[in-house]
Amino acid sequence: MKLLITSGGTSEKIDQVRSITNHSTGKLGALIAESFLARGDQVTLVTTQSAVKPASHPNLTIQIIKNVQDLLETMQPLVKTHDVLIHSMAVSDYTPIYMAGFDQITASQDLTEFLNKTNVQGKISSQDDYQVLFLKQTPKIISQVKKWNPNIRLIGFKLLVDVSKEKLLAVARASLVKNQAEIIVANDLDHISNHQHHAYLVKQDSVIEATTKEEIAQLLLTHIHAKDNL
Amino acid sequence: MKLLITSGGTSEKIDQVRSITNHSTGKLGALIAESFLARGDQVTLVTTQSAVKPASHPNLTIQIIKNVQDLLETMQPLVKTHDVLIHSMAVSDYTPIYMAGFDQITASQDLTEFLNKTNVQGKISSQDDYQVLFLKQTPKIISQVKKWNPNIRLIGFKLLVDVSKEKLLAVARASLVKNQAEIIVANDLDHISNHQHHAYLVKQDSVIEATTKEEIAQLLLTHIHAKDNL
Repeated sequence: MKLLITSGGTSEKIDQVRSITNHSTGKLGALIAESFLARGDQVTLVTTQSAVKPASHPNLTIQIIKNVQDLLETMQPLVKTHDVLIHSMAVSDYTPIYMAGFDQITASQDLTEFLNKTNVQGKISSQDDYQVLFLKQTPKIISQVKKWNPNIRLIGFKLLVDVSKEKLLAVARASLVKNQAEIIVANDLDHISNHQHHAYLVKQDSVIEATTKEEIAQLLLTHIHAKDNL
Repeated sequence: MKLLITSGGTSEKIDQVRSITNHSTGKLGALIAESFLARGDQVTLVTTQSAVKPASHPNLTIQIIKNVQDLLETMQPLVKTHDVLIHSMAVSDYTPIYMAGFDQITASQDLTEFLNKTNVQGKISSQDDYQVLFLKQTPKIISQVKKWNPNIRLIGFKLLVDVSKEKLLAVARASLVKNQAEIIVANDLDHISNHQHHAYLVKQDSVIEATTKEEIAQLLLTHIHAKDNL
């Protein structure tokens, strides 16, 4: 079976020296990749420079990306040639457009003018006490996966912070339906640490609870191959 | 001699899952530390988790920081107990205050209201096509060094992007005077790569040119110890 796995977090440039990064160690993605490789599957891992990588393996291919645009261009052809996508990467929701000093912003009659501006300086400098950064939404890659390949089996992830179990499961179920995923792995950052990774594997008709990264990887392996063997 | 060296780049949190990072590999700071250690000096290196570290050494102490506030609290006592500060860290000029959807911003009569707001969500979410992030200036640490310890010898750094030599030297000289530094190492990101690091060591009455990280480290070592031996 050919698996496409994403891990790590994207970074969106503000200018040549600064960027906004979504934090993700890549540990869970690396563990999942190692589990499938050990089972004899082929894995393509799309990840970031700083993410934790799996041990090298003859059936493992790694592609490094930085930002959402890279990710989109890298994933589109890969989604078409893989059987399963496990999309654990923390993808930036918004990307910088323009940054300016607060005085320039308050002097404007119409803030929409800044949505079409671009900074010309390689390093944006300002003497103002306050700065303002305008950002725009990035393309939602997970919602395009089934358009690129209706047959790919999709496992998505949803990370929230300090929410109730009900809220977490509701958001995961909405994502499951919207993106036609088989499972959404729903987790809350407040319940993730070095030694613990609490998550709910949300399917259409059931929810399975896991408490470690190893358990999440094992449950995904079992799910994917159980269905495979039917 | 006791040297305090800073390297890497600070990260300022937007929320629990995103932050703005100033990029810096830490390679130059690590090389400088190794040069002084080899000469027999004691080095305290203040750096970041992801920065390149020098080889371990009995006279090397490493302290890890994340953001400008950490850096300030860590450096203030250290500046008082060291003879020389080589401040090569890329320090964030601005730190996030508040992020909101574009609609909320445009509906406001007075944008200053957002300068006192704080996000309550651990992960800021929005359905808007555009988001706006307000940031405030961080404390300028380099300008406080001589107040904390008037006797410390200060080597500062100035990184610009795609500017003329004249502009780069002028900005470096202004920093030299303002911060009472002995040298400002002025460099342009467009002239830094894996194998090359073009820089001007700007002193009050002279400018020395360097083309590699090794050369910069060697010149700083010679400068510090030449004056030391007078």
